Amino acid sequence: MVKVGIVGGTGYTGVELLRLLANHPQARVEVITSRSEEGIPVADMYPNLRGHHDITFTVPDVDRLAACDVVFFATPHGVAMSMAPELVERGVRVIDLGADFRIKDIELWEKWYNLKHTCPDLVAKAVYGLPELNRDQIKGAELIGCAGCYPTAVQLGYLPLLESKLVDHRRLIADCKSGASGAGRGASVGTLLCEASESVKAYGVPGHRHLPEIRQGLSGIAERPVGLTFSPHLMPMIRGIHATLYSVLKDPVGPDLQALFEERYRNEPFVDVMPAGSHPETRSVKGSNMCRISVHQPQGEDVVVVLSVIDNLVKGASGQAVQIMNLMFDLPERSGLEQVALMP
Amino acid sequence: MVKVGIVGGTGYTGVELLRLLANHPQARVEVITSRSEEGIPVADMYPNLRGHHDITFTVPDVDRLAACDVVFFATPHGVAMSMAPELVERGVRVIDLGADFRIKDIELWEKWYNLKHTCPDLVAKAVYGLPELNRDQIKGAELIGCAGCYPTAVQLGYLPLLESKLVDHRRLIADCKSGASGAGRGASVGTLLCEASESVKAYGVPGHRHLPEIRQGLSGIAERPVGLTFSPHLMPMIRGIHATLYSVLKDPVGPDLQALFEERYRNEPFVDVMPAGSHPETRSVKGSNMCRISVHQPQGEDVVVVLSVIDNLVKGASGQAVQIMNLMFDLPERSGLEQVALMP
Amino acid sequence: MVKVGIVGGTGYTGVELLRLLANHPQARVEVITSRSEEGIPVADMYPNLRGHHDITFTVPDVDRLAACDVVFFATPHGVAMSMAPELVERGVRVIDLGADFRIKDIELWEKWYNLKHTCPDLVAKAVYGLPELNRDQIKGAELIGCAGCYPTAVQLGYLPLLESKLVDHRRLIADCKSGASGAGRGASVGTLLCEASESVKAYGVPGHRHLPEIRQGLSGIAERPVGLTFSPHLMPMIRGIHATLYSVLKDPVGPDLQALFEERYRNEPFVDVMPAGSHPETRSVKGSNMCRISVHQPQGEDVVVVLSVIDNLVKGASGQAVQIMNLMFDLPERSGLEQVALMP
Amino acid sequence: MVKVGIVGGTGYTGVELLRLLANHPQARVEVITSRSEEGIPVADMYPNLRGHHDITFTVPDVDRLAACDVVFFATPHGVAMSMAPELVERGVRVIDLGADFRIKDIELWEKWYNLKHTCPDLVAKAVYGLPELNRDQIKGAELIGCAGCYPTAVQLGYLPLLESKLVDHRRLIADCKSGASGAGRGASVGTLLCEASESVKAYGVPGHRHLPEIRQGLSGIAERPVGLTFSPHLMPMIRGIHATLYSVLKDPVGPDLQALFEERYRNEPFVDVMPAGSHPETRSVKGSNMCRISVHQPQGEDVVVVLSVIDNLVKGASGQAVQIMNLMFDLPERSGLEQVALMP
Repeated sequence: MVKVGIVGGTGYTGVELLRLLANHPQARVEVITSRSEEGIPVADMYPNLRGHHDITFTVPDVDRLAACDVVFFATPHGVAMSMAPELVERGVRVIDLGADFRIKDIELWEKWYNLKHTCPDLVAKAVYGLPELNRDQIKGAELIGCAGCYPTAVQLGYLPLLESKLVDHRRLIADCKSGASGAGRGASVGTLLCEASESVKAYGVPGHRHLPEIRQGLSGIAERPVGLTFSPHLMPMIRGIHATLYSVLKDPVGPDLQALFEERYRNEPFVDVMPAGSHPETRSVKGSNMCRISVHQPQGEDVVVVLSVIDNLVKGASGQAVQIMNLMFDLPERSGLEQVALMP
Repeated sequence: MVKVGIVGGTGYTGVELLRLLANHPQARVEVITSRSEEGIPVADMYPNLRGHHDITFTVPDVDRLAACDVVFFATPHGVAMSMAPELVERGVRVIDLGADFRIKDIELWEKWYNLKHTCPDLVAKAVYGLPELNRDQIKGAELIGCAGCYPTAVQLGYLPLLESKLVDHRRLIADCKSGASGAGRGASVGTLLCEASESVKAYGVPGHRHLPEIRQGLSGIAERPVGLTFSPHLMPMIRGIHATLYSVLKDPVGPDLQALFEERYRNEPFVDVMPAGSHPETRSVKGSNMCRISVHQPQGEDVVVVLSVIDNLVKGASGQAVQIMNLMFDLPERSGLEQVALMP
Repeated sequence: MVKVGIVGGTGYTGVELLRLLANHPQARVEVITSRSEEGIPVADMYPNLRGHHDITFTVPDVDRLAACDVVFFATPHGVAMSMAPELVERGVRVIDLGADFRIKDIELWEKWYNLKHTCPDLVAKAVYGLPELNRDQIKGAELIGCAGCYPTAVQLGYLPLLESKLVDHRRLIADCKSGASGAGRGASVGTLLCEASESVKAYGVPGHRHLPEIRQGLSGIAERPVGLTFSPHLMPMIRGIHATLYSVLKDPVGPDLQALFEERYRNEPFVDVMPAGSHPETRSVKGSNMCRISVHQPQGEDVVVVLSVIDNLVKGASGQAVQIMNLMFDLPERSGLEQVALMP
Repeated sequence: MVKVGIVGGTGYTGVELLRLLANHPQARVEVITSRSEEGIPVADMYPNLRGHHDITFTVPDVDRLAACDVVFFATPHGVAMSMAPELVERGVRVIDLGADFRIKDIELWEKWYNLKHTCPDLVAKAVYGLPELNRDQIKGAELIGCAGCYPTAVQLGYLPLLESKLVDHRRLIADCKSGASGAGRGASVGTLLCEASESVKAYGVPGHRHLPEIRQGLSGIAERPVGLTFSPHLMPMIRGIHATLYSVLKDPVGPDLQALFEERYRNEPFVDVMPAGSHPETRSVKGSNMCRISVHQPQGEDVVVVLSVIDNLVKGASGQAVQIMNLMFDLPERSGLEQVALMP
């Protein structure tokens, strides 16, 4: 059994890790930390966990965490970089669901996150956590900076097009829609039911922290700097990301895009290329680790429209982290991730 | 492996059976029927099942169904009674999620369902499917009429109070709230998003088909005819039932109600008595087979208020049916039912 | 033109006053206060008001408020009682949408609100603001404590039954359902979209601040102390209250309840008794000042079920306050309150 | 008083016309037709209208309609073209909220609507109903084909950019999000609450009927054929359209886009250009006839992102139709359209 520690267990990605690990046959949560909830059983905070977990929040303690095989950070940015160095040194594998180890350009990171990075050396060693992109690197990694929620949906959607160099890498437009759980569990007026339901709005159009991460990822795939416009929108729902991805084909009469996508993802356990003509719904992945994708070339013209949906808390966060843990510990990749999405 | 057949697989209780059985370690769906969708893979209709089931809808055929160990009817009333007799005769165990075998008084059934019952003899043999009430009878049954969704939430909430004869059985008021999935997947104006979201209404206050079923159940528990007012309400959400149950204590200073409930349900795998003072949320059971209950005696007066929540499609329908199958085939009662509710 | 001041304009009842007064032909908002938003135009905070109001929040200032004809307090409890005495003394009429002047028994108020009342004498002079109950008193009042949202829905539903002494006043059960806007605009985890949507729960079953207010009102109507159980529930929607009201007829074969209700409310501009057999939906009053009511006697037994719906922010708060202002200033009672509810 | 007839009064645009006209000071609904609901008072179908309208549905009858000054068609395509010719001939002004008179190219219309057009001559005479584009033509028109919901939001967003020829007209991408009321009130599985809430999906990406209408409109504005990709998405909410509009500046350092938009719409009563940096929410126009727009140039690069929101049932349908009626009858343009959007 893999011994698991979780730092920051009170947020939505923390409770989602607990949900997924509750039925994981080869892993067991040994430590879960929260400064504010010390001594409280996790099931008191999240009654869905009653009968599934009987552990209690403790204050973060490196010694206790160091007794684990792997530690997940389900924390705001800035926390993982303060504790990861010691854990890595003591041989614990670290999976950060936050943003501290995603961006290789330290200056860029510091600009967008408005914070001094405290362990730039470790960033260089960290592996970006997106299995469909770099599964082999992940297997041997000591430290993972998991892909963000929007970045996962966007990169999986553009991957076959950019790898194959079929589209103009300078004209990418990602119009993304996310449920409110992406904003986390913090009390804030903007995500009150009365403010965010029965309405739709864009936000962060002038610039969003996931922009440099996506740009870095897509540029790596395209092997040259991409031009990207990224517009996130808040949806009146809890879970789900829908990325609508536009790009321009270099040659509109060339390729069989459906076959391209099917081929690229044939062996991926968590990417499902839908039949031609489909429009995936976010609810078809609600609670599951799947990404469902369809590809369109409307009216046979030169614009490709890729539709890519994930559950932001699963494939966009905690499920992806468990998938990565499975890879790191040589467990079956699907372990603990067999949940069927809830429909209706 | 238990070989499973499902009649009526296109509705919400049908797809929910498929979701639950996808990960059931000792059962496999062999046949699923739908007249309208013959030849269509179930995953084409419900994309959440892609990768989990690759079977195809067939027209209902008694011979094919008779090759199963158990057949679930996830059909409107009137269907099960037309096919169950032959299946039972051929040794197949039958679990009806509908209403055909729930009510023992045939005349009463015919009045509320406005239909001639075609196999009253079988009704007499059928066992009412509510494990917390009659687990032993269920184990040996050939034919089960599963408890309805409202009846499950209401009976589990009143059970300890009526068994112990602590409350006035003539003055029961069940104010119940259900998500829209209780109305099924049929196209109807009343449950369009535009009609049923952002609004609350009562319905069926003058009389609802679950009234005689609940009354029969509670009268059995109380060992005398109860007086019951039952008011269902439509909630602007997909899943969940919240029953708010009022009754009058014969002696307000007597009993420790919290202990009474905890004791009664101590060994029940799917009933969770919440700590004193709790208010269970329907989302704490979303997608899971749990019923969570709390009991209140406001201001120390003589009215008891029990709050009982279930997921109407799981403990109120398909999960309960799987729990019953487990009992009938001597499998672990929790098999296939370990899902943790989705929060948030 | 009636000159209007509003204290506490940033909450939901404040913005709702602004919405209603925007089109009021005989009133104009002259002052609106908010400590935190001083100097900010109201339309910056609430873009729906762009083009309708161009006034700016100011810090509360008694002199400026004293230049108004009427001042609304759309504030948490405790604020109005600190400013009302001086305003009343200076001849300004005061309408408090909060709870400071609703409860006559000061000790009781202090117990439930956990605060020392600073002007008990004024409570004695204040008139309870529920026009259907005491229109004439309101007309001449200097100070109004407006009925709360739940209390409005509950009292309007029970009024004809208790006035006519047809029901047992000792056995009243009010099962109430409210949209999340009743909790106000403060940032809190419990009313985040991710916590409160797709779920239903009761709260405050052991005791809620509206209980003593409702009990006082119903006891006044019944002319004797009533016995009341009050269970509020949080609904996954923004606006609306649905009160389901149970009581026991002294004589089940006696009265024509439909006629009783129609007669009682025949001349009320904002109470609509629905046709017999109806189930009013909260959306039928969304954004409007109407209360819609229907009355049932299920199965002809002795329990009466009254269904009463309002928009908690309109008839349950700001609309009622405007109706009261109209009465106080001898304006047509419907002025500014002609909005048709939004369906769908 | 303008005498108004409405053909097809049972759908969402019909009831919305009734809501808006209920408080219109210079118009009165004299006739409302519905084959299926003949003899039923409109308030029986839409209880929000109780107390506001006491007319009754009648079967469509040209003579009765011909006695009106103006007839609105709130009908599916194909209905207006069958009745409009006679009405126009008899001097009645006709405002079609449907699609029969929007597209000038009859062949194109017949292809997308899969129907033979029965009065192509009238199409030539019809005026496209979008006041911000062609107010003067509307004033004198006999027959109006009102702009569709998506086309209104998209054209108002692109108008200043295309008129000024600042952007590449060949690379327009309109990513649009609509509430479910856009699908109408017909019973259909796809817009059940259980199917459409808590989920987001695109639809019609290969081709949607509003595509040729938008393309015709934008090409007219640009004075050359535009290249347009149009992706509609279904939102889990009732009302609202959010259009996110992408285009490429010919010269990224040139123009002050904020000033361009403010100048263009300075005198428009129903277009509100938000302050620079804003992200309009659909709820800020819920129930009102406003279109709110903001314009962004992310990171100072060459892509312009315009955000344009309307209420699809008001500015996208019935409100626009009333605005057009006001223009045709020389009434104040805002008459009957002063509603403030409902927030929250």
